[in-house]
Amino acid sequence: MKNVEHIGIAVKNFSEANALYHKLLGVEPYKTEHVASEGVNTSFFKVGGTKIELLEGVNPESAISKFIEKRGEGIHHIAFEVEDILAEMERLKGEGFTLLNEQPKKGADNKLVCFVHPKSANGVLIELTQEIR
Amino acid sequence: MKNVEHIGIAVKNFSEANALYHKLLGVEPYKTEHVASEGVNTSFFKVGGTKIELLEGVNPESAISKFIEKRGEGIHHIAFEVEDILAEMERLKGEGFTLLNEQPKKGADNKLVCFVHPKSANGVLIELTQEIR
Repeated sequence: MKNVEHIGIAVKNFSEANALYHKLLGVEPYKTEHVASEGVNTSFFKVGGTKIELLEGVNPESAISKFIEKRGEGIHHIAFEVEDILAEMERLKGEGFTLLNEQPKKGADNKLVCFVHPKSANGVLIELTQEIR
Repeated sequence: MKNVEHIGIAVKNFSEANALYHKLLGVEPYKTEHVASEGVNTSFFKVGGTKIELLEGVNPESAISKFIEKRGEGIHHIAFEVEDILAEMERLKGEGFTLLNEQPKKGADNKLVCFVHPKSANGVLIELTQEIR
């Protein structure tokens, strides 16, 4: 794991949350992106070497909408940047971690991503992320 | 906010969680610390420029024990490093955020800390942290 690439936060109201995190962090989101495959709107704020990602579900079937329905708004996942996502997936499987997708999938922000089941990691949803080169 | 100084994760069993995060992150905790005032054991893992902090409550009155009882294990807070904690507390109060302590208090890892109420920030418990100089 090279670094914490971003922290994902599930929010109900995208525009209100963007305004609030602008005030909190003192910077505006440097980009927003709609990820149709995941049913989410995302925005990214840069804080030092890490990003804060706000996520809003755009339909009730989105994982973000379901998360909020079950647990309320809050921190949804931690994303770690990796050099080689396939090698890291193999390594973690060998260590007994449960992966939520068997193949890397295309995420926001030009990344390949894979999620590790929160039951494997003390209730924390972990994302592995590798820049698409 | 200068950077994400650490991410705090509430765990039930400190030694098991330390072993698991060692496997997950590929590094050992570089230090463990008992913070008597907060009733917690803490350990710190370095991942790039950010730290992962595991927190275990040592008695039922600890905020960590109560968090786990209510929500289960998982991500507890995000800590942002600030240059001047008093100035940042003033700024955030002025922006309408609710602070959980009126004065900075001594946290783990030689820091002054102040928490922002999760109701102010879409369910996210925010810690401001400044190195004690």
